[in-house]
Amino acid sequence: MNYDVDFSVPFRHRVRFTSELSGRDFETLTNLLIEDAPSIPPKVLLIVDHGLAVNQPVRKLNERLENCEVLSLLDGRAFDIAPVDGQKNEAHEPSPAFFVKGGEICKNDSDDVEQILAWVNRFDLDRRSYVIAIGGGALLDCVGYAAATAHRGIRLIRIPTTTLAQADSGVGVKNAINYFNKKNWLGTFAVPWAVVNDASLLETLSDRDFVCGFSEAIKVSLLKSAEDFDFLCQSVDRIRDREIESSFKAIQSSCRLHLEHITRGGDPFETLEARPLDFGHWSAHKLESLTEFELRHGEAVAIGVLLDCIYSAKVHGLPEEVVDKVANFFNVLGLPLWHEALTHRSILDGLEEFRQHLGGRLTVTMIEKIGKPIDVHEIDRQQMRSAIDRLSRFRDASRCR
Amino acid sequence: MNYDVDFSVPFRHRVRFTSELSGRDFETLTNLLIEDAPSIPPKVLLIVDHGLAVNQPVRKLNERLENCEVLSLLDGRAFDIAPVDGQKNEAHEPSPAFFVKGGEICKNDSDDVEQILAWVNRFDLDRRSYVIAIGGGALLDCVGYAAATAHRGIRLIRIPTTTLAQADSGVGVKNAINYFNKKNWLGTFAVPWAVVNDASLLETLSDRDFVCGFSEAIKVSLLKSAEDFDFLCQSVDRIRDREIESSFKAIQSSCRLHLEHITRGGDPFETLEARPLDFGHWSAHKLESLTEFELRHGEAVAIGVLLDCIYSAKVHGLPEEVVDKVANFFNVLGLPLWHEALTHRSILDGLEEFRQHLGGRLTVTMIEKIGKPIDVHEIDRQQMRSAIDRLSRFRDASRCR
Repeated sequence: MNYDVDFSVPFRHRVRFTSELSGRDFETLTNLLIEDAPSIPPKVLLIVDHGLAVNQPVRKLNERLENCEVLSLLDGRAFDIAPVDGQKNEAHEPSPAFFVKGGEICKNDSDDVEQILAWVNRFDLDRRSYVIAIGGGALLDCVGYAAATAHRGIRLIRIPTTTLAQADSGVGVKNAINYFNKKNWLGTFAVPWAVVNDASLLETLSDRDFVCGFSEAIKVSLLKSAEDFDFLCQSVDRIRDREIESSFKAIQSSCRLHLEHITRGGDPFETLEARPLDFGHWSAHKLESLTEFELRHGEAVAIGVLLDCIYSAKVHGLPEEVVDKVANFFNVLGLPLWHEALTHRSILDGLEEFRQHLGGRLTVTMIEKIGKPIDVHEIDRQQMRSAIDRLSRFRDASRCR
Repeated sequence: MNYDVDFSVPFRHRVRFTSELSGRDFETLTNLLIEDAPSIPPKVLLIVDHGLAVNQPVRKLNERLENCEVLSLLDGRAFDIAPVDGQKNEAHEPSPAFFVKGGEICKNDSDDVEQILAWVNRFDLDRRSYVIAIGGGALLDCVGYAAATAHRGIRLIRIPTTTLAQADSGVGVKNAINYFNKKNWLGTFAVPWAVVNDASLLETLSDRDFVCGFSEAIKVSLLKSAEDFDFLCQSVDRIRDREIESSFKAIQSSCRLHLEHITRGGDPFETLEARPLDFGHWSAHKLESLTEFELRHGEAVAIGVLLDCIYSAKVHGLPEEVVDKVANFFNVLGLPLWHEALTHRSILDGLEEFRQHLGGRLTVTMIEKIGKPIDVHEIDRQQMRSAIDRLSRFRDASRCR
């Protein structure tokens, strides 16, 4: 007797866009904290990227949460909130939040995950409690992994503070930490309770960090929508000038397209071969490791996307003008179009490493035209080398920055 | 701008029932090992409960897997397969399997999970590889947690070797280890690739272990199906005599009802308040901890189910004859109907602990009639004490065993 039962697990994905979460939009956050049992205020554990301890909008948000009577905010003041490296919270003032050192470091060993689990246990959080995580993509990944495995999943609200996390990973259904020195080796698929993208949190980013999210934005528009692609190209000067309306609209467009892919694309937990959102990422991952992460993810993705656009033009008929538009978009923003690591003899090993990561046979997404991705199982190495050659013409453009 | 997007994640649940997996039904197992890429044999890591190292059907199964040319079976022979306590594999003969000490011990610290992750890494398993776990419920939980988090999920095939795991937990979509000294504190929801229930693996169980699965079988029939309940009651003598056809049919019935609940019940990942499959479990969990696990789970569930049947009769109109039938079923099998720990003054604290575990308000399932469970948010403590009093009449029946 055998059973093969197909079934579905229902989820709800909530995404909010706000202008000023610590100000007039504060209720957007508290409205997400549903009270399951009447008159029992929801328990909320707030975990903040240590680098944001002195960030004004974040501090204001902490204070408002602390003073919010409808919540039971777990209070970091009475505890040692020193981050793992032993430095004290720079603000060193009473704060309701717990701090974890953000950036890749929080994913590199399991100490931070263990610390977050210990807080969850100490305060008796349960599946109906909330963890609010405020920080960049790495911190959200690390907190998300802890929240997903404690009690098999506590409600997680992500408040991304970088353009990259707002436009891309924050809305995703993945979390992970690095293990055995391998990126994202340990993790789960878990749908966050909600994601709140707030424009005011982007104001204090450095220019270098600010532009990083837009390489993922152009990537997803290439895969999904000529309309969004055109909008990004038309807005590029205003994004470079950090004009908030256009920039935030570009982030919203990217976030929406990612969300649609996850919720309507049919394979949210990545059981199939194809991972179209990884367009341009085989070389991006390789460039990150070859440069020992001197290149940031958004920068490496800019190079990787442009490279695979050139290859797509050579082999799959993508119009040349798309390549030019993509190059111009990155160039105006000051994103790199080239890195010397592309000349490294192991660069094409990135293809095999990409295959290993997914398992099974090589499956790389290329594009025939905007909005029309295709999956290919073989890459013509000579054509790819020739695409790298063509990319090297941008060497000078990248060098002069 | 806000999005609330409801979406579903598709899964396939595969359950197989076999008579002799190491013999004529061997292909049932290999047919599950789908080859994703043509001519690349699927990688298989076989992890076995150390206590089964000398079990004949398990050894035969290992040997057949080892000789199976269509697989790439990762080979434990070259490695130190000593379990965590330092004892050598008793068989101490060449074996393709990796051994982990089963029972609750493998869930109590994270050493075993780390060991399994290390094997997964060492052999470069990916999401399209298979972990086959052979053992009781605790081992399946521990291996399942490792398999679910490595690469965000490797295909897991569970081969449960106890009646309890075959009838109940093996088909479930949960895994966990104990953490902070709390049972199942850390874990995930993850649908196994497949579950293979093999009758021949039950032959070597002790009588005490053999009967343990049938308390969960009667529980799920009380919740779901008068027909299955009647079948169990009619088969009880044959189950006691370990007549394999009836016993295995009873396990199949339980497994099928659990499977239907998971795949058709609407809440496989337990986001709602009600957890009907936990009928009788609030006191069972408490009895396990009060007796320091002297009572096995299946035994504690027998007492807990009978207690909540008596309460349901007192308060919710469950016919008395159902109580009598349930008591008779357990009694014939030699399952306990009573334990002195029920007189412990803290027994009713089990209700609060049960609430805490799920979060939110107290929600306990009781039954109005067979196949008609109801969720209640309050328990009449006087009536529950009176139900315990009534249960104490079975003291002598339980004592004479």
